[in-house]
Amino acid sequence: MMSSPPGDLPVTFADIEAAAARLEGIAHRTPVMTSRTADARADGKLFFKCENLQRGGAFKIRGAYNAIALLTPDQRRHGVITFSSGNHGQAVALAGRLQGVAATIVMPNDAPASKVSATREYGGEIIFYDRYTESREEICAKLAADRGLTIIPPFDHAQVIAGQGTAARELFQAVGELDVLLVNLGGGGLLAGSALAAQALSPRCRVVGVEPEAANDGQQSLRAGKIIRIPVPRSIADGALTTFLGERNFPIIRALVSDIVTVSDQMLIDTMRFFAERMKIVAEPTGCLGAAAALAKRAHQPGERIGVLISGGNIDLARYAELLR
Amino acid sequence: MMSSPPGDLPVTFADIEAAAARLEGIAHRTPVMTSRTADARADGKLFFKCENLQRGGAFKIRGAYNAIALLTPDQRRHGVITFSSGNHGQAVALAGRLQGVAATIVMPNDAPASKVSATREYGGEIIFYDRYTESREEICAKLAADRGLTIIPPFDHAQVIAGQGTAARELFQAVGELDVLLVNLGGGGLLAGSALAAQALSPRCRVVGVEPEAANDGQQSLRAGKIIRIPVPRSIADGALTTFLGERNFPIIRALVSDIVTVSDQMLIDTMRFFAERMKIVAEPTGCLGAAAALAKRAHQPGERIGVLISGGNIDLARYAELLR
Repeated sequence: MMSSPPGDLPVTFADIEAAAARLEGIAHRTPVMTSRTADARADGKLFFKCENLQRGGAFKIRGAYNAIALLTPDQRRHGVITFSSGNHGQAVALAGRLQGVAATIVMPNDAPASKVSATREYGGEIIFYDRYTESREEICAKLAADRGLTIIPPFDHAQVIAGQGTAARELFQAVGELDVLLVNLGGGGLLAGSALAAQALSPRCRVVGVEPEAANDGQQSLRAGKIIRIPVPRSIADGALTTFLGERNFPIIRALVSDIVTVSDQMLIDTMRFFAERMKIVAEPTGCLGAAAALAKRAHQPGERIGVLISGGNIDLARYAELLR
Repeated sequence: MMSSPPGDLPVTFADIEAAAARLEGIAHRTPVMTSRTADARADGKLFFKCENLQRGGAFKIRGAYNAIALLTPDQRRHGVITFSSGNHGQAVALAGRLQGVAATIVMPNDAPASKVSATREYGGEIIFYDRYTESREEICAKLAADRGLTIIPPFDHAQVIAGQGTAARELFQAVGELDVLLVNLGGGGLLAGSALAAQALSPRCRVVGVEPEAANDGQQSLRAGKIIRIPVPRSIADGALTTFLGERNFPIIRALVSDIVTVSDQMLIDTMRFFAERMKIVAEPTGCLGAAAALAKRAHQPGERIGVLISGGNIDLARYAELLR
């Protein structure tokens, strides 16, 4: 069943469908995994959409590729720039290379070494900043103006949201309608895109965002009815440390998301261990947000059909080994 | 293209087809993963058949379930027994539970704790022995005689071989013909079954067994033209520590396997790290044998299409973390 989103939302399901067509043969149609052990623990039927097995190790290639694909020839010639805690930076570098567009990436100087080296491998130029004293948005805007680069922001961008929505679209296509869809929430790109896909393909599905306890700006914003800014949070979920939702993301989330819940860092570590031990997959802490909420029964009733997005699997091996011990 | 195996082999491709029908809806049709990074490193096109994502965490459910499915009602009533370094024990326990057959598992007292607890979880009764001083075959035979149990051996059994062959069958069905198929070798169940599947579905494919350097009884046996026994080897590949090939396995391997190569424990660790870091999957050391040979270009020419069986992903998390560091 299809239904139209409210007319004032900045992205439509048609944008997601168009993005899916552009991503055909570029992004993997990642597997949906199930686990009887997880089902028993959650008292529900879980469907894990494994974007940790996506190209570049995270869902981010979907939005980045889609946004770059829609640039004008002149914009492509000048190149693109972005700021990112890691996975989006890698994705812009990779999507740029795949489309012959030069990419500059502004990254925090405490980003995981694996993300830095992967971004370099994909041919991106990296410029570092201090997460705790500098504004990545300002650095990025200045470089863009000086060099004529087009900014591909990590979440506050209609075509990035549309691209991210293709992951949930594939999940519904694979498993049919769901009762609940659990999506990790940083700036709101994946959550907004997923909510639009759910509205079109599984309209009775409750879409729930999941944040780290220390980074619950989204939960506060949904409750307040406006975007709330918080100080830079500290959590092992390094992909969800954004301090405010995007202006394009918030109205979609407000209109279509049922609830936003939080989980502790310890729950993320336990979930990461569960993935390694029982499902034999590597997920980064941010990628464990949705599953942690499912295993803790934060947002579902017994027996429900629950979709879980595993957003990524990029983590330094040394750090990963430390968390598994 | 189908061709008949030599008439004197103890298993045929028809046995594998029959096993596949029995396993429908029981064993997962595991995904085949690809990796551009792995392809670049191996200078070939790799197809990883992910039996680490199989039920029970290894391919072993295929053979165990198939063998138990063919028992007489009287045999089922009395129950089954097996000896195993771990994954086969879990598989017999799980396959027994799924078919309502009591299972007794003889395991070495240094088996990984995760395998012991998983076997218990599946409802198997465990009897421990000392890998370095006792014969698991003798202990198992005595218990079988005393209690009227049917032995389900880990590899030297026609219907176990037929079941294990269904993994390679699925791989060929998914990706078509291959130039090389790399299969880890312990007692020869997976290798013999895979070779039979290759002969039927990809007759020009070279099937190559891969052993730990310290456990190269298979390589010695293939060269000598007879089964060679070695002292109990020490390697991190705890699923490939068998000291001789099975009597039913060897003639199939001799007739259909092109070569047997070896890899070092360090190569297994490097491959395990590669799987975690680049492909986001957990493989146990034994499960890395085929991939280690592929990444080291042990058995293929540049540009070839190479199938790799990842046999399992069961490893204690603490041990896994130690090896990743």
